[in-house]
Amino acid sequence: MPVDALLAGPVRVVNVGLESFARDLAANGAAVAQVDWTPPRISQQNDSANAEALRRILAAEPVLADVRRAGELIPPLDAGRLILHAGPPIGWERMCGPLRGAICGAIVFEGWAGDLAAAEKLAASGAVEFAPNHHFGAVGPMTGITTRSMPLLVVENRAFANRTFCAINEGLGKVMRFGGNDAEVLARLAWLRDEFGPILGRALSASPVQLNPLIARGLAMGDEMHQRNVACTSLLLRAIASSLAGAAASPFSLGRSFDFIAGNDQFFLNVAMAMGKSILDPARGIEGSSVVTAMARNGTDFGIRVAGRGDEWFTAPVEMPKGLYFPGFSAADANPDIGDSAILEAIGLGAFSMAAAPAVAGFVGAGGFADALAYTRAMSELTVGQNNTWSIPALEFRGVPVGIDVRRVVETGIQPAINTGIAHRRAGVGQVGAGVARAPLACFEKALRALGRP
Amino acid sequence: MPVDALLAGPVRVVNVGLESFARDLAANGAAVAQVDWTPPRISQQNDSANAEALRRILAAEPVLADVRRAGELIPPLDAGRLILHAGPPIGWERMCGPLRGAICGAIVFEGWAGDLAAAEKLAASGAVEFAPNHHFGAVGPMTGITTRSMPLLVVENRAFANRTFCAINEGLGKVMRFGGNDAEVLARLAWLRDEFGPILGRALSASPVQLNPLIARGLAMGDEMHQRNVACTSLLLRAIASSLAGAAASPFSLGRSFDFIAGNDQFFLNVAMAMGKSILDPARGIEGSSVVTAMARNGTDFGIRVAGRGDEWFTAPVEMPKGLYFPGFSAADANPDIGDSAILEAIGLGAFSMAAAPAVAGFVGAGGFADALAYTRAMSELTVGQNNTWSIPALEFRGVPVGIDVRRVVETGIQPAINTGIAHRRAGVGQVGAGVARAPLACFEKALRALGRP
Repeated sequence: MPVDALLAGPVRVVNVGLESFARDLAANGAAVAQVDWTPPRISQQNDSANAEALRRILAAEPVLADVRRAGELIPPLDAGRLILHAGPPIGWERMCGPLRGAICGAIVFEGWAGDLAAAEKLAASGAVEFAPNHHFGAVGPMTGITTRSMPLLVVENRAFANRTFCAINEGLGKVMRFGGNDAEVLARLAWLRDEFGPILGRALSASPVQLNPLIARGLAMGDEMHQRNVACTSLLLRAIASSLAGAAASPFSLGRSFDFIAGNDQFFLNVAMAMGKSILDPARGIEGSSVVTAMARNGTDFGIRVAGRGDEWFTAPVEMPKGLYFPGFSAADANPDIGDSAILEAIGLGAFSMAAAPAVAGFVGAGGFADALAYTRAMSELTVGQNNTWSIPALEFRGVPVGIDVRRVVETGIQPAINTGIAHRRAGVGQVGAGVARAPLACFEKALRALGRP
Repeated sequence: MPVDALLAGPVRVVNVGLESFARDLAANGAAVAQVDWTPPRISQQNDSANAEALRRILAAEPVLADVRRAGELIPPLDAGRLILHAGPPIGWERMCGPLRGAICGAIVFEGWAGDLAAAEKLAASGAVEFAPNHHFGAVGPMTGITTRSMPLLVVENRAFANRTFCAINEGLGKVMRFGGNDAEVLARLAWLRDEFGPILGRALSASPVQLNPLIARGLAMGDEMHQRNVACTSLLLRAIASSLAGAAASPFSLGRSFDFIAGNDQFFLNVAMAMGKSILDPARGIEGSSVVTAMARNGTDFGIRVAGRGDEWFTAPVEMPKGLYFPGFSAADANPDIGDSAILEAIGLGAFSMAAAPAVAGFVGAGGFADALAYTRAMSELTVGQNNTWSIPALEFRGVPVGIDVRRVVETGIQPAINTGIAHRRAGVGQVGAGVARAPLACFEKALRALGRP
C-alpha cells in the first residue's frame, strides 16, 4: 500500500515492520496501517550479538591516565589544518552559529588567522578541514572543538587496551564549547595549554584514577554526570590533590589550578565523556548487534552509531531541547541540540540516571523527585541490560539502564532523553539554559533498516 | 494509685500525664492505667517558647573559621590536669572501657605519665579532673577526649556571635575516639598538633567556610553528616585546597595534609558536630521551651539538655546500638552507645536525615531506600519544625525535621534514632561496627517533669 494512499484516508499512523508497536497504538485507539517489513537478518542474531555488546560494555575498566597535547595523541591534527568538532560530519555551509563561532576562535587560537573576520574567511574558503571528534577517538561537549595545541584528557579502557580523549572543561561563562571566541576565551585556552594541562598530566601520570568506583560514588551522591558533576568533580580533586601538589612548579601555580577545578562543578563532565567513549568503542563492529555505540550532535544533525554497523552514522535533523533559560533568555535564543556529550546517555548516565540526580530534574525543567524516577524508568524500556556496578539508591540500588537497543526505540516510539546545556544560536554569546533534548526517531529507524542489510 | 498496685494487676502499661499516648495504646489493645499528671506551667508557654527556639536554630550562620590549641580556646585546660570527655558528667569509677582507654592515652600524650599503666593509676587517684566537653563549648565524637595541647576546629555562629570547638577527626583504624591509645595513635595526635592543625588553621583563617550551603549540598549528595560525610569532606577539601596550598611550609607537608583529608570520608564529621553545638547553644535558656539543645553519651549514661532548663542534664542508662559488625566482631564485643555526635540528630541530621542518605541505611543495618524514608518520616513526628535551607531531594525537597520536642517524644513513645559508630567495649581495640542507637525515653520524661517545675 503506497504511503500516499494511506495518508489520504483516515489512517493517522504508518507503522513499518515491528508489529507490537502497531498493536500498542491500536490498543490506544489510534488508526494504524501495518506495512509488512521485517529486517531480514537481525532477528535471530540480534539477542546474542546484543548480549556480547553488553558484556563488553560491562567489562570496561576506564582509567583517567594522562593529559597530552592533541597533536601528539592525534597526529593528523599536526599534519594539516584540521579541526575536530562534535557530532556527525558536517561542512562549513551547514554549520550552526555557535559551531562556526567556536571554529573561528580556534583558528585564531592556533595562529592560522590574525582575527575572527580573517578566520571566518579562511574557514569558508575550504582551506581548513573539518571532521568529527568521533573519527579520531575523541569527544567534546557542545561545539566540541579539538585542535592540535589543546591539552586532552586521556582515558584508557584497560580491559580492552583502547584509549579515548576529550579536551579539558573550560568552566562556566563565556567559553568556546558554547561558541565563545573572544580574547578572554582564548586566554583561558592558552593557560590550559601552558600551565594547567601539563600540571594535571603530571599528576594523573603519577596517580591514575579508576573511574568505575568514582562514578559509582557519584551516582550515590546525586550526580548523573551530564548536567551535574559536583560530586565527581569534588571526588576527583580530592583523589589527585596530593599528586597535584607534587606536580606544580610553584604554590602560586598550584593555587590557580585548585581554584580552577574548585570553581567549576562541571569540571568532571569531560572526563565522563572520554570515559563514555572508552566504554562503548570496544562494542563497535559486533555483527547483528542493535546496541547504540554513540549519540552525537553537531547543532544541525543528530547522529547515532550502532554496534552492528561499525563506524557508519545514521543521522536526522536535531531537535530543540526543552528546558529552563537563564534570566534574559528564552527559547527564541536557543541553538538546537549540540555536542558529543550524549555519549553519557548511551552508557546509562545523564537522563538515563535522572533518578540518581533529582536536583538535575529541577535544573533542566523536568520536574521533581517523582519525575526523576519516571525518566529512568522510561529509559529502562530502551536498554538491553543494567550496570549493577553503578547503582541508583532511590531505585533500591538498581543498576543504571545501559545499552540502548535501536529495536526497542523504534518499537516503543520512546525517544532517548538527553540532559543538555543550551547554547545561544549566535556565535560568541554562550550558554543560555539547560534542558532535556530527545534523540530523533529517524536515526534509529535508519539504523534498524541498515542492520537488516548485508 | 501506687505503681506497685498497678503492676500487680492485669495492667501492662502505666501512662503518666499526656493522655493521648494512653489513648493510642488503648486503641492498640493494650491495657493502660492513666495516672493524672500535668506539667503545671509549660502547657501555655510551650508553643511560643518552642517557636522562639526554632527561630534561633534556623537563624544560625555557622562558619568554620579556625583551628587553635585547646588550652588557648579553653583556658581551664591549661590551668590544671583537666580532661574533657563525651556525654554528661561521669566519674572514673563508672566509666566504660574505651573511655578509660582513651583517657589513659591522653594522659601519656600530655606527658602526665610515662606509660599507660602509670596513666591509669593517675586517673584513678583523683589527681586528674574530668568534665564534659559540653561544659566548655566543645563536643567530641565517641570517647570525645579533649586535652590542652590538641588542635581544635573553631566554628563561629555569626548570627549570635557564639563559638564552639571540636578536635580534628583522626581517621579510620586505631584511634583515640574509639579508645585506642598505643604509640601509633599518639604519633598521629602529635602530627595533628605539630603539622596538620597549624596548616589547617592558617588555611581556614585565610578562607573561612560557610557551613549552611555546604550542608545543603551535602544532603543533596547522600550525606547525613553523621555516618556519611563523603560529600562534605570532598566539598570542604575542594573549598580550601587553594588556601591549604598557600598555608603549607613545603610541598611534602602539603601532600601529607591532602592525603590525610582524602583518606578519611569522615573527616567532616567533627566539623558538623561543632556546627551542631554552635547552632543549638543560642537556644539554651528559653523559659518554657521543651526543645532539645543537646543529646550526648559517655558510654554509661545518655544525657539530654532542654532549652527551658539551661545547662541541666537529664540522664538515663545508655542503650546498645543495633547494627552491623565488621568481620570478626559481634554484638558481644560492642560498647554501649557513646559520643557527643548525637548533637547532629538534634539539628535534624544523622538518622533524622536518613532519607537523604539511603547508603547509610544499608551501612548501619537499617534497610534500603524505603526504610531510609521511613526513618525521616518517623523522626519528623518528634520535631517542632523543619529547616528548609537543608532539604531532602527524595522527599520532594522537604526540609530536614529539626527541634526535638521532649513533649512529642514522651507523647508518642518514639525514641529519637541516632546513627552511630560502635566501639569495642575493651580499651584499645577500636571500632567494631556501625548501627542505630535510640535515646532512652527516661531522659525525656525527666526533662518534661523538670520543665513543669519553677
